[in-house]
Amino acid sequence: MHYQLYYWPTIQGRGEYVRLTLEEAGCGYTDVARSGNGTGAMMKLMAVGKGTPPFAPPFLKAGKRVIGQTANILLYLGSRHGLAPKAEAGKLWLHQLQLTISDLVQEVHDTHHPLGSSLYYEEQKAAAKKRSDEFWKERVPKYLGYFEELLAANGGIYVTGRRLTYVDLSLFQIVEGLRYAFPKRMKAFESEIPGLVGLHDRVAARPNIKAYLASDRRIAFNEDGIFRRYKALDG
Amino acid sequence: MHYQLYYWPTIQGRGEYVRLTLEEAGCGYTDVARSGNGTGAMMKLMAVGKGTPPFAPPFLKAGKRVIGQTANILLYLGSRHGLAPKAEAGKLWLHQLQLTISDLVQEVHDTHHPLGSSLYYEEQKAAAKKRSDEFWKERVPKYLGYFEELLAANGGIYVTGRRLTYVDLSLFQIVEGLRYAFPKRMKAFESEIPGLVGLHDRVAARPNIKAYLASDRRIAFNEDGIFRRYKALDG
Repeated sequence: MHYQLYYWPTIQGRGEYVRLTLEEAGCGYTDVARSGNGTGAMMKLMAVGKGTPPFAPPFLKAGKRVIGQTANILLYLGSRHGLAPKAEAGKLWLHQLQLTISDLVQEVHDTHHPLGSSLYYEEQKAAAKKRSDEFWKERVPKYLGYFEELLAANGGIYVTGRRLTYVDLSLFQIVEGLRYAFPKRMKAFESEIPGLVGLHDRVAARPNIKAYLASDRRIAFNEDGIFRRYKALDG
Repeated sequence: MHYQLYYWPTIQGRGEYVRLTLEEAGCGYTDVARSGNGTGAMMKLMAVGKGTPPFAPPFLKAGKRVIGQTANILLYLGSRHGLAPKAEAGKLWLHQLQLTISDLVQEVHDTHHPLGSSLYYEEQKAAAKKRSDEFWKERVPKYLGYFEELLAANGGIYVTGRRLTYVDLSLFQIVEGLRYAFPKRMKAFESEIPGLVGLHDRVAARPNIKAYLASDRRIAFNEDGIFRRYKALDG
């Protein structure tokens, strides 16, 4: 199966969790909006009519099916490509962890857009500073502490045990993203999460991920994505 | 199967989407934190150790399994109790819609807590007003417009067709909640979503839901939940 991924062509954003999974699994895929077709084809699939139009990118075309919502796409891909258990209990548990990561990603977004995504960052800088302070004081320790403990309870290699899953790929991206967006705060915090830092390094060293990160298929972090580096928000 | 639902005992919150599904399906369940055991038992299950500890309530105990994240719980319950398709494609499509509702619920929460959930509303009133204005200008029309169009495209009875699903129950709750939290704004907006208003009424009239809403199992809306009525935010 050759997949079509539909996502904004200039950012990692939520599409990155899907890209990492497709890359690690060695799936053939076209990153449609980046491949000359532009975003027009993407918008067309989002038009409500017959079928299953997604509310927002990213979405994946798999044959005739169109699957939206990041965590739902990973639920679909994971057990087909060896990155999730096949049995229902393990599959839902992994999905639950991914949904918790989705919540964290939303909160990362809100650090620079607390008053709404239709307003520019420059229109909400003071609020963004307050939200970022709260995020690092309350939320980062809670979320990353949870995954750090889970990782330790399951042996310290990957978050559910010895086998890599798409959740590990997502946690790699969280560590990368926080390092990009909040270099000072993250540097000070990393001693609290030695397990996750180790997991990050194990994921980065996997041959398919290593090749992907070195390729031009990996878009660089920038200030249009979820993880944005604004000096004023970094402590 | 008799279920145990774990959620905060004094609010509808995210637990309400699970309660509505359990009630409509006629499932036997105990709302644990409301039944004398207090929240202690809930906290105990969230302790990381062996097993599958949830990050946050709500979560459902089904035999030995503990399932967290609202949409994931509905994914588990839906096809077991006739409120979702059994085949994978329909199941994931419905789940995708529920995940879109989860995103909307998070944005509702952010209208009164844009600077962070650890701060009081009173500490962020000005920001909350701005976020609420943006929410009603940009986000409500986008989200509810999407579901309104889907409903129309699928025949106008329930959002995926003639059969009720857990997504319809959740849309009922969204209409109820917006009416409670933003009575003026919602009243002015309802002419844009006649289909969803009709769907709301059809859900409310279903015997199991009607009985539930009239019972003391339905907690009243209040200013500790997701949908809060603050006059300053209502236009």
